[in-house]
Amino acid sequence: VQAHKDREGELEPLRWEESGYLVLLDQRKLPGEISYVSCEDYQAVVRAIRDMQVRGAPAIGTAAAYGMVLAALGFRGGDVEGFYDSLAEAADRLKSTRPTAINLAWAVERMFRKALALKRESLESGDFLKVKAALLEEAHAIAREDVEANKRIGELGAGLIASGESILTHCNAGALATVGYGTALGILRSAAAQGKVARVYACETRPLLQGARLTALELSREGIPVTVITDNMAGYVMRKGLVNRVVVGADRIAGNGDVANKVGTYTLAVLAKTHGLPFYVAAPTSTIDLGCRTGEEIPIEQRPASEVTHICGRRVVPEGVDVLNPAFDVTPHELVSAIITERGIAREPYVETLKRLVNPQIFDQGGHRGCQGF
Amino acid sequence: VQAHKDREGELEPLRWEESGYLVLLDQRKLPGEISYVSCEDYQAVVRAIRDMQVRGAPAIGTAAAYGMVLAALGFRGGDVEGFYDSLAEAADRLKSTRPTAINLAWAVERMFRKALALKRESLESGDFLKVKAALLEEAHAIAREDVEANKRIGELGAGLIASGESILTHCNAGALATVGYGTALGILRSAAAQGKVARVYACETRPLLQGARLTALELSREGIPVTVITDNMAGYVMRKGLVNRVVVGADRIAGNGDVANKVGTYTLAVLAKTHGLPFYVAAPTSTIDLGCRTGEEIPIEQRPASEVTHICGRRVVPEGVDVLNPAFDVTPHELVSAIITERGIAREPYVETLKRLVNPQIFDQGGHRGCQGF
Repeated sequence: VQAHKDREGELEPLRWEESGYLVLLDQRKLPGEISYVSCEDYQAVVRAIRDMQVRGAPAIGTAAAYGMVLAALGFRGGDVEGFYDSLAEAADRLKSTRPTAINLAWAVERMFRKALALKRESLESGDFLKVKAALLEEAHAIAREDVEANKRIGELGAGLIASGESILTHCNAGALATVGYGTALGILRSAAAQGKVARVYACETRPLLQGARLTALELSREGIPVTVITDNMAGYVMRKGLVNRVVVGADRIAGNGDVANKVGTYTLAVLAKTHGLPFYVAAPTSTIDLGCRTGEEIPIEQRPASEVTHICGRRVVPEGVDVLNPAFDVTPHELVSAIITERGIAREPYVETLKRLVNPQIFDQGGHRGCQGF
Repeated sequence: VQAHKDREGELEPLRWEESGYLVLLDQRKLPGEISYVSCEDYQAVVRAIRDMQVRGAPAIGTAAAYGMVLAALGFRGGDVEGFYDSLAEAADRLKSTRPTAINLAWAVERMFRKALALKRESLESGDFLKVKAALLEEAHAIAREDVEANKRIGELGAGLIASGESILTHCNAGALATVGYGTALGILRSAAAQGKVARVYACETRPLLQGARLTALELSREGIPVTVITDNMAGYVMRKGLVNRVVVGADRIAGNGDVANKVGTYTLAVLAKTHGLPFYVAAPTSTIDLGCRTGEEIPIEQRPASEVTHICGRRVVPEGVDVLNPAFDVTPHELVSAIITERGIAREPYVETLKRLVNPQIFDQGGHRGCQGF
């Protein structure tokens, strides 16, 4: 793994190099240092996702898709069963890195299905040239679709924001959490381009400070006024009347509209409800998991204690004291005013509206109850 | 200002040395380092309060009382008017260090009144021996009364806690925030001594991490099970059913029961209400300010931006990005289940019950509506 400095100053969370490797922006080092790591095999992608050099549900999904490409490119020999076994192992290892974000499993399984569809051709040709090329094309498609979806989410969501409003967001659901443009921040970018956004309040988002480090960086680079607050100031800011709406991303959305997102999201949703503020979730449809009936079924990743006990390498919690470190929490659908996807805006009853968004083909185009933007 | 290491390992927030100076535990350096600073004049006390080497409403009140002693001891010459002018100046400087906690003004004004009551004797004797001795005795009384009040608060509050319960607290309202024993943590100490406390959840309390650094240290030293969470995990912990009650301290309580306390308290009160959990405020009656009709009238201190932008000396918020840093927020009385003082437990209607606690002599001992524990 080599690291090189960015020359143009542009922040790309990930890019594929034609010579056959994946380059990831090391997000742990922002905003102090802009440096990249190169992943030349899928194991390097596994490590980068687990250690959160790359983070954000859509970004880790796309990184894992390229991880599948690296697994295919790295296979030596001509044994077709061996090739597919090695792809299956890579898929398992990639999916197991972080359990909550469904985009990861979604992207890896899409890649594996693509490979499987070409198994007969591999058996016939006796090589993997076609499947390797197809996997790279599929990963590129996932990356391209992500940016397109985010732009559409941005357009749809900007329509919900009125002129002169200030918006509160949590963690980083921006360009850095995706392949580009961002989900929640995509909406803020679109709304800002329409001159609507007075100010964004970014919760710093302990323990890893993605709001302070990443969201503030993205927005200030675009000239959007941004104020960072500690997470416990959200109530103060709302009670003072400083914000009009809350917009966040999502790591997994259950069939009933319950939303798993960065820990602290649930608290913001409760506060928004108390203050009568709309609470929006922005995510591509790949984040919706109809296999989870409710948020209770979403596995919540517990991260290492050291993320809470130490800050910048210095111990702030005394030795021997317990800590909790759930990376996510679940916001119940009753607190979610709308879920903004690239295919439309879902509202209650989510059990119905989310099904329509995920499988638009199996519904007639008659009654759009609860859905907008088709 | 000299610093010396603690030998016995005991954590005393402040102590008066017989040779005529005040020693303060430097709380900014905990838990990594236990060191003390000596204040030999009142200006050193002003700096220590402003820079938060000593913090916590009762502790800064008592430190300021000793600051008044140092101002008196430091006066040179025999000019009586000059002496009282210099005391008035010290009082103003001490009171202006931190505007929110009323205990500071309360203690300084009590000291000044004590001095004024002896002005005639100073004029007659032509020296200040008597007033200096009386001021030192008054400061000792404030310190002694604080510990006594906290023990009584602890006893009364422990009666509200049932066996096997887990309690959430915020910031540090412990021995370190007072002269000893603590207010909110006094209740937890008393309840733990009765074997009632299963676990304490301590919010880390950004930006200065008093919960992680100080509360966790105090409780773990006493063998009370404690788990530190980041502030944004409070909703997660409540929704999981891990806590039964919330107990916090206060920096100023308005006549209607609105409570100014460390920023983030209001968010916890909203969450407690949403989850049907009792929300208690523990404070001595010196924290009640009947001069403030509602929380709207309580001045909220804005602290330096660097407390949010930097952690352990490292910049985490990009250059040029705005931050907010209110040190406190106001929790409206509707969200406060009870206010536990050394004179009794107040409940709604606070306008009536707090008046009775502050001025018990002007009420008949007949109807204790809303008050308990007299």
